[in-house]
Amino acid sequence: MTTRRDILRGGLAATAGLAAGTAARAEGDPLITELQDWNHVLGDGVDANPYGMPSRHEAHVKRRSVEWLTADPVSSVNFTPLHELDGIITPNGLCFERHHGGVADIEPAKHRLMINGLVDTPLVFTMQDLMRFPRENRVYFLECAANSGMEWRGAQLNGCQFTHGMIHNVMYTGVPLRLILEEAGVKTNGKWIMPEGADAAAMTRSIPIEKAMDDCLVAFKMNGEALRPEQGYPLRLVVPGWEGNMWIKWLRRIEVGDQPWHHREETSKYTDLLENGTARRFTWEMDAKSVITNPSPQAPILHSKGPTVLTGVAWSGRGTIPRVDVTIDGGKNWHEARMSGPSFDKSMHRFYYDFDWDGTPLLLQSRAHDSTGYVQPTKEELRQFRGVNSIYHNNGIQTWYVNEKGIAENVEIS
Amino acid sequence: MTTRRDILRGGLAATAGLAAGTAARAEGDPLITELQDWNHVLGDGVDANPYGMPSRHEAHVKRRSVEWLTADPVSSVNFTPLHELDGIITPNGLCFERHHGGVADIEPAKHRLMINGLVDTPLVFTMQDLMRFPRENRVYFLECAANSGMEWRGAQLNGCQFTHGMIHNVMYTGVPLRLILEEAGVKTNGKWIMPEGADAAAMTRSIPIEKAMDDCLVAFKMNGEALRPEQGYPLRLVVPGWEGNMWIKWLRRIEVGDQPWHHREETSKYTDLLENGTARRFTWEMDAKSVITNPSPQAPILHSKGPTVLTGVAWSGRGTIPRVDVTIDGGKNWHEARMSGPSFDKSMHRFYYDFDWDGTPLLLQSRAHDSTGYVQPTKEELRQFRGVNSIYHNNGIQTWYVNEKGIAENVEIS
Repeated sequence: MTTRRDILRGGLAATAGLAAGTAARAEGDPLITELQDWNHVLGDGVDANPYGMPSRHEAHVKRRSVEWLTADPVSSVNFTPLHELDGIITPNGLCFERHHGGVADIEPAKHRLMINGLVDTPLVFTMQDLMRFPRENRVYFLECAANSGMEWRGAQLNGCQFTHGMIHNVMYTGVPLRLILEEAGVKTNGKWIMPEGADAAAMTRSIPIEKAMDDCLVAFKMNGEALRPEQGYPLRLVVPGWEGNMWIKWLRRIEVGDQPWHHREETSKYTDLLENGTARRFTWEMDAKSVITNPSPQAPILHSKGPTVLTGVAWSGRGTIPRVDVTIDGGKNWHEARMSGPSFDKSMHRFYYDFDWDGTPLLLQSRAHDSTGYVQPTKEELRQFRGVNSIYHNNGIQTWYVNEKGIAENVEIS
Repeated sequence: MTTRRDILRGGLAATAGLAAGTAARAEGDPLITELQDWNHVLGDGVDANPYGMPSRHEAHVKRRSVEWLTADPVSSVNFTPLHELDGIITPNGLCFERHHGGVADIEPAKHRLMINGLVDTPLVFTMQDLMRFPRENRVYFLECAANSGMEWRGAQLNGCQFTHGMIHNVMYTGVPLRLILEEAGVKTNGKWIMPEGADAAAMTRSIPIEKAMDDCLVAFKMNGEALRPEQGYPLRLVVPGWEGNMWIKWLRRIEVGDQPWHHREETSKYTDLLENGTARRFTWEMDAKSVITNPSPQAPILHSKGPTVLTGVAWSGRGTIPRVDVTIDGGKNWHEARMSGPSFDKSMHRFYYDFDWDGTPLLLQSRAHDSTGYVQPTKEELRQFRGVNSIYHNNGIQTWYVNEKGIAENVEIS
């Protein structure tokens, strides 16, 4: 068996790529042999940034919109630059946004959370009240149901930021929703909850009481600090593994009822139209999915051949990702990827495939397996059952074609 | 045994605090019954912030300096606002800074890493070269050896940001240093490495080859995105569990030698002066430590009595933290804290103690146990062996006094 060491050594020796180049540089590279400005000029002190920002050389690392996607004069969606990230934590400044009424600007001291409907005692909490409940810390992915939605009818968007960037993965701190509902006392006929946002869209969704009592959190922190405004500051509902628009932002009210409400965002939107004109509804759980983030159309291979790192992310709304397969030849041969980083329930996982590129064109795909045994399907398999009318819940296998110059593009193979 | 539910219910019933107040609000609070601006005015679109920032209502959450601590016109150290954070991830913008020559401003395309000294082949890597090695993702705390250093001679600084804020906890992506050293080929007499920074201070430290080959990383990403400039952009050495100044930032060179170099930062600095005039040297590992972050001098209790959440962080340079004890009466009674969040090797851990405050003054302490069986000592126990001449490696138990109004201050009890 070829080990990673062998691949690296072999690749280096065989291609005279990395090793020879790096040894040669030791002799004649002025950037290492000559004094540079930053080696002797005193840099900025700490007073420059009480809240730190990325390097000015990273200005290209940002959330991006797709111009033709939103009709509004003001965009309502942008995408996480997955191809610029690594590990499993999405930094708060780069978490994608999707708003139905813009970003509400709320002063925490004026925010309230009401619990009403089929409860023994209707309650209204201030933020300070909520700080008195026991808290938990958990890492979850949040994926918009429409992520990859533009790909139902074929390869369209050239970059994983656009095809798969409506996802982020964050460590939340919050109060288990169960504790708050128990505080109000849910009546025996209380079978559903309807969380409502305080923004101008007053977003609402229906959620079965079983999920509410299971793993939902009323969260006030993400990655250690307060929620960002665009993520629901000061309070959002976390609905692990379920589609993003149920994670109500600027959470102001939770009504308990005996049946679902069938509001706009769970009837005309967020239902999956099939070929025969009927629609799937309440398709809450996000199916297992993966995407190769490097190389990808926005992130070409920058060398000619030799040792190459392929990486990507995988996730499932039903559990963990014990395994991801990768192919570089369009499915002729599959290789089990190397996972690195924490494996949490309903969280993003990071995979790598370290290989020796021979410089010929590649057809890259990844295939996630989740802890229930489910295997990510091809787009064609999905279309056979679901048609191409929906924009939601496309978890098909993504293909990138990489030419001999290392340039990648979005393609489909049958 | 009293469960968390009982405490919460009991506390609410007994003190007529939370429940009565929250129920009363449901009837007459205009902030929930009347329409507010943010409920009907369209908010900002996503174009406002391609790289997102915290809410304007969180401006008080920032790194802070201590004015009298640095003689320079430009400060060279600031502190993480631990009392404003939760969970275990420190967001990049709030990771404390400590510089010896300011923040180097380096364009990644011009950055080089040289491996030289006792190696078979001296090598110089570009950033792109390093991207071709296999990567790993791991979460580690970084603590400055001088964290809590001002407390050796008694309680001085009123806030955990200042007494314990020279620490952060981050998920790194990087190449195992072992792979890079093996690429150059370490000669049999190569027993130490000397990493060097590219900043104007050209920081250097001596590290035994065993540590270098064990768990060190050459890291280029923190919490998913590129290292921040003040954390060594574009490249830093990660030396898990060891004192912060060994984690060389702006890493430009690693020399392999047969003995330590005894440079300035491991002789006149970062050695621990004892009472008898001799000094401990090479005190690399950070001993197990903990601190209560809420309540604390910067974060008073905001209610009069009833259900109260106490929280804090604990860490060890030698492993995990399976247990933290908490006392609210100055050590008369100790309670095992509730841990919540991931437990990683050499990473920060989050603990909670949910209790029913009777409104009388409190003497708060926390005591960490690490996975080696080591127990965090009192400051007095430390002073018996180490005197008070050093500023480094103070991991003594911290005490906060909280008065009946919920105001906390830094005190010591014998």
